[in-house]
Amino acid sequence: MGTSYSSCSHSTTTVSTHSLLLTHPKSSAFKQSRFPNPDFKFHSTHQIPQTHLRIMSQKPSQVLGGKVEVGETQEGVSKRPMIDFHGIDEGLVEKMVYDALVWSSLHGLVVGDKSVQRSGKVPGVGMVHAPFALFPMPFPESHWKQAYELSPIFNELVDRVSLDAKFLQDSLSRTKKVDAFTSRLLDIHSKMIEINKKEDIRLGLHRSDYMLDEETKQLLQIEMNTISSSFPGLGCLVSDLHRSLLNHYGEYLGLDSRRVPNNPAATRFVEALAKAWTEYNNPRSVILFVVQPEERNMYDQHWLSALLKERHNVSTLRKTLAEIDSEGKLRSDGTLVVGGQEVAIVYFRAGYTPIDYPSESEWRARFLMEQSSAIKCPSISYHLVGTKKIQQELAKPNVLERFLNDKEDIAKLRKCFAGLWSLDDSDIVKKAIESPGLFVMKPQREGGGNNIYGDDVREALVQLQKEGSEADAAYILMQRIFPTVSYTFLMREGVCYRDDTISELGVYGAYLRNKDKVILNDQCGYLMRTKVSSSDEGGVAAGFAVLDSLYLT
Amino acid sequence: MGTSYSSCSHSTTTVSTHSLLLTHPKSSAFKQSRFPNPDFKFHSTHQIPQTHLRIMSQKPSQVLGGKVEVGETQEGVSKRPMIDFHGIDEGLVEKMVYDALVWSSLHGLVVGDKSVQRSGKVPGVGMVHAPFALFPMPFPESHWKQAYELSPIFNELVDRVSLDAKFLQDSLSRTKKVDAFTSRLLDIHSKMIEINKKEDIRLGLHRSDYMLDEETKQLLQIEMNTISSSFPGLGCLVSDLHRSLLNHYGEYLGLDSRRVPNNPAATRFVEALAKAWTEYNNPRSVILFVVQPEERNMYDQHWLSALLKERHNVSTLRKTLAEIDSEGKLRSDGTLVVGGQEVAIVYFRAGYTPIDYPSESEWRARFLMEQSSAIKCPSISYHLVGTKKIQQELAKPNVLERFLNDKEDIAKLRKCFAGLWSLDDSDIVKKAIESPGLFVMKPQREGGGNNIYGDDVREALVQLQKEGSEADAAYILMQRIFPTVSYTFLMREGVCYRDDTISELGVYGAYLRNKDKVILNDQCGYLMRTKVSSSDEGGVAAGFAVLDSLYLT
Repeated sequence: MGTSYSSCSHSTTTVSTHSLLLTHPKSSAFKQSRFPNPDFKFHSTHQIPQTHLRIMSQKPSQVLGGKVEVGETQEGVSKRPMIDFHGIDEGLVEKMVYDALVWSSLHGLVVGDKSVQRSGKVPGVGMVHAPFALFPMPFPESHWKQAYELSPIFNELVDRVSLDAKFLQDSLSRTKKVDAFTSRLLDIHSKMIEINKKEDIRLGLHRSDYMLDEETKQLLQIEMNTISSSFPGLGCLVSDLHRSLLNHYGEYLGLDSRRVPNNPAATRFVEALAKAWTEYNNPRSVILFVVQPEERNMYDQHWLSALLKERHNVSTLRKTLAEIDSEGKLRSDGTLVVGGQEVAIVYFRAGYTPIDYPSESEWRARFLMEQSSAIKCPSISYHLVGTKKIQQELAKPNVLERFLNDKEDIAKLRKCFAGLWSLDDSDIVKKAIESPGLFVMKPQREGGGNNIYGDDVREALVQLQKEGSEADAAYILMQRIFPTVSYTFLMREGVCYRDDTISELGVYGAYLRNKDKVILNDQCGYLMRTKVSSSDEGGVAAGFAVLDSLYLT
Repeated sequence: MGTSYSSCSHSTTTVSTHSLLLTHPKSSAFKQSRFPNPDFKFHSTHQIPQTHLRIMSQKPSQVLGGKVEVGETQEGVSKRPMIDFHGIDEGLVEKMVYDALVWSSLHGLVVGDKSVQRSGKVPGVGMVHAPFALFPMPFPESHWKQAYELSPIFNELVDRVSLDAKFLQDSLSRTKKVDAFTSRLLDIHSKMIEINKKEDIRLGLHRSDYMLDEETKQLLQIEMNTISSSFPGLGCLVSDLHRSLLNHYGEYLGLDSRRVPNNPAATRFVEALAKAWTEYNNPRSVILFVVQPEERNMYDQHWLSALLKERHNVSTLRKTLAEIDSEGKLRSDGTLVVGGQEVAIVYFRAGYTPIDYPSESEWRARFLMEQSSAIKCPSISYHLVGTKKIQQELAKPNVLERFLNDKEDIAKLRKCFAGLWSLDDSDIVKKAIESPGLFVMKPQREGGGNNIYGDDVREALVQLQKEGSEADAAYILMQRIFPTVSYTFLMREGVCYRDDTISELGVYGAYLRNKDKVILNDQCGYLMRTKVSSSDEGGVAAGFAVLDSLYLT
C-alpha cells in the first residue's frame, strides 16, 4: 500500500519488549542510535526525538496516525551482519556523510521538513534531504532475482483476481461487517458490478514487499501494494547516490559500485503511465494525481510528473479527493473532467486509508472517478485485491489455481508466501496463544502501525475469544519473519546515526492491458527500506526508517 | 567580486528618493511587490519583510553587512518593457509558478533557508529554492554577443595588469592610506614582490558585470569580479529552468525556448579548474575551496565540487580561513598541505571582504597560501586588479595601451567603460555636486551596499571637501547607468511577487596560463540578475534580487 512520507519519519510499528528480549539479548545499540556520531563535526543539536524511541511500550492504537509501510512488516532477530562496518575509518565516514548530503540536495532526494509549516503544501520551501542509509544493504543476488521474477506473475495474478468480483465480495464479506473502510470500498465495487462497469484498459503500478528470513533463507512476501505504491521517485535516487559514493570510496570499503543494481523505478512507472495515456488516446487529456491535502513526500510524486512532462510531454494535474468532488464531473459519455481538463488516468497517491475520507465528499469523488471512463490506477477491484484478507485467501490451498494456469508460476508464488491464516482457524489461534512470538496479528484496517506482535498477540487473541463476536474477522495471522540484522549508518536531518537494522525489499511492477492485449507486464525497479531493529529495551525503534538500496552478494 | 548568498536576499543598494522621483514618476508598483499575487493559491503568510522595503531612506553605512553584488550597480529609470507581461493569464502563471518551484527542488536550484539555523553549515537541511525570475529577461542579442566577445579580452587584461606590480602599488597608494582592507592586501602583495614570488600557473575565474543603458543603448561595465565570482553553479540552472518552462508554455507566451542561450558556466568553470589541476600535476592533490564559516549559498559551490568529482575525478576540500590557519602548512618546497592533503589550487569563495578576516588568524592563512606553490584562484595580484580603483585607473586615457597591443581589443574595452573618475578631479566633483543624479559614488571598501546615490552624493562630496583630508581616496565616481525597466515575476520562498525590475548581465570568463602558454581563455556562460527597481517612494527595493536568465531579442 502507499504511504505518505510520514511513514518514513514517523513509522510506528511496535514490538513487544518481551518477545525480542527472549530472542535478541543485544541491547547496547540504543545509545548509539540515540545520539549522532560524536566524531562527526556537524554542530547539530538534533537527536532522535524521545517520542520515537519511547513508543515501544505504547499500544499500537495509540501511536501516530498515517499510513506506515514499514509498519506493515514483521521482523525478528538477527544472526550476523553480512558486511561489518563496525571498524570503519571515521574520517572516511565523515567525508561520505558530507558528500551524500550534498548529493541529495543537488539531485532532488528531498522531502518536506515537518518542522516547516508550508512544506507539505508548497513545493520548493522547507526542504530537507530524505532519510537514507549511507551504504547499500547487502542482499543475496539469487533472492533479488527471485523477487524480480515474481513481479510479472504477481501483476498477472492481481489482474485475474480483480476480474472475479464474486471472489472479492465473498472473501471480504466477514471483513465488511467489522471494517467500515473496506465496507465502503466494497459498496463502490458492488455498484460497479450493478452497472456492469468494465475496465477495458487496466493499469497496475504495484510494489510487492519481501523480507529475507534469516532462519530458512527464504524470501517471504510481506504484502502486495496495489494502490499508491510509494517511493518510485526517490528510491531510485538512493541507488544512484550509493553508486556515486562507491565510485569514489568503494576501493577503501572493498565494495564495487556495479554490485548496486540499476534502479529505473521512476522512469519505468512513468513509461507505463505514458503508455496507458497513449491507449486512452486523447492528446489533450491529462493524468490526474490524487493527492493528500498535505504531503511531505510530494517530491517522490513530483519526480513522476516531471518525467511525464519532460520525457513524454504528458501533463499532470494534482487534486485532493475534496477538490475532485467540487471540480470534477462526468460527461454523458463517461469522460471524467476535472477543473475543465479531460482526465485520461486517475493515479492514486491518496485514498488508501480511512484518514483520506474525512467526509462524504471524498467518497463521492472516489465514486465519481470509479464510474468514469478514465483509467484508474488502481481500479476499485485492483485496490481490493491488495487487501490483507485477499492475500490470506490467496495463500489457501488450491486458490491460486483458480486464477493462474502455469504450474511453475504458481509454485514460484507459493514459495514466497509466508504462513497466513484466518482467525477462524482454531488450531492456529491456539498455537499463536502458546507461541505468540512466532506470529504477527495484522488488522485489515489500513493506515499502518496497527500490527500486533509478541505477547500482545496472545492478549488480543484471548480477548477476541472472550468477546466471541465477529471482531476477529478484522484480523489475519501471519508467520513472523526474522530477517538478518546489519549494523549500518542512517542519515536523517543532516545527522548520521548508527545502529543495528533490518531491511525490506520492495519490487515495483507495472501491468498494462487493453482488452485482450497485454501491453506491459514487467518489473520496474526496487525499493530497499532499512530501519533500526533494536533498542535497549529490545523493541524496534521503528520511528527511524530510511530509504536504502541493495548491494548484491 | 564574489558574494555570499545573503547578497541575493539582503541586497541593500540605496537610491535617493528624490533623484528617482524626478526621473521616474511611476510609483504604484510598490503595493504589487509587497504582497504575493492574491490570485495565487499558496496559503502563504510571507511578504517582503518591511526591512527590505524601508531601507531606502537609510544611510548606506547603516544597511545590512555582507558582500552585495547587485548593490554594486548603479541603476536609474526605464522606458518601456520589451515584453509586456501585464495582461498574462493568471491560470498560466499559477501553473508555471508551481512547475518552476518543483523544477528547482528536483534540480538542486536551492539555497540555505536563513530561518533554519543549521542551513549555512550542514548540507541537506533547511533548503529552499533559490530566488529566481519566472521568465527570462529580454536582452538584445547584439549586446549579449558584445559582452561575450569582451570576456577573453578582459581575461587577458587582468593577467597583464597583474604582472605590473608597480602599477598596482602606485595606483592604490592613496587608497591604501584610507582603506585598511586594501592596505592589508597590498602588504601581502609587497611581500610577494620582496621574495620575488612568481606565479607560473595563473588561473582566473572572472565575471564581468554589465548594464544596458536605456538612453544610449550602450552596454556598460559595472565591475570586474576577479575573486569569488558567484553563482556559476546556480545561475546556469535558471537558464535550464527557463528553457524547460518555455518548452511547455512558450507557445502560450509567444516565446521560443531556443532564444534562451545555453549557459555552461558551471561545467566550464569546472573544466578550467580541472585543467589547472592537471597542470599542477599531482594526481593525489586536491582543490581547496576557501569558504565562509556560514554559507547559505553553499549549493552554488557544491555544484562545482560535485562536477569536479563526477566528471574529472578531482577531490575538493572545504575550509575556512581560520581552519586553514590551524591545519595548513608549507613544505620546504613550498607545497601547501591542508589537513594532510596537498593542495593544487586554492579556490576562494571567501576572503573578498574585511568581514572574512575577523582576526590575524585569517590574514595568516591568506599569507600562507599566497606564499605557497599552489595555484591561487585568484592570486593576490589578480585580486587587486579587480578593485574599483584599478577599474577607474584603467579607464584613464592611454592606460589600456600599457597592457594590450591590439588596438581593436582596446577599442572594444573602452566602448564598454562607463565614465569613471577619481575624486581628485575637481571638475567632475563640481559636476557631481551640481547633478548628483547622474553619478554614483563607489567606495573602495568591499562588502557591497556601500554605493552612494542621488542627493547623498552631493552631501558626501560637500562633506569630503569640508574635511579636506585624504578620505576622498576611498571613493571613485562613476557615471550613473539608467537601464531598461521590465515588469516581471519574482519567486522567493515559494511566493510569486510581481514588480518593475532592472537587470544586470554578468559574463563568466576563464583564463589559464602556464608560463608562456595560454591554455584557456574563454567566456564560460552568463549570469542574469534581476531586482525590483521601484517602490512607492521611488527608491530601489534592492532587498529583492533574483537569479534570472536572458531571452535574446
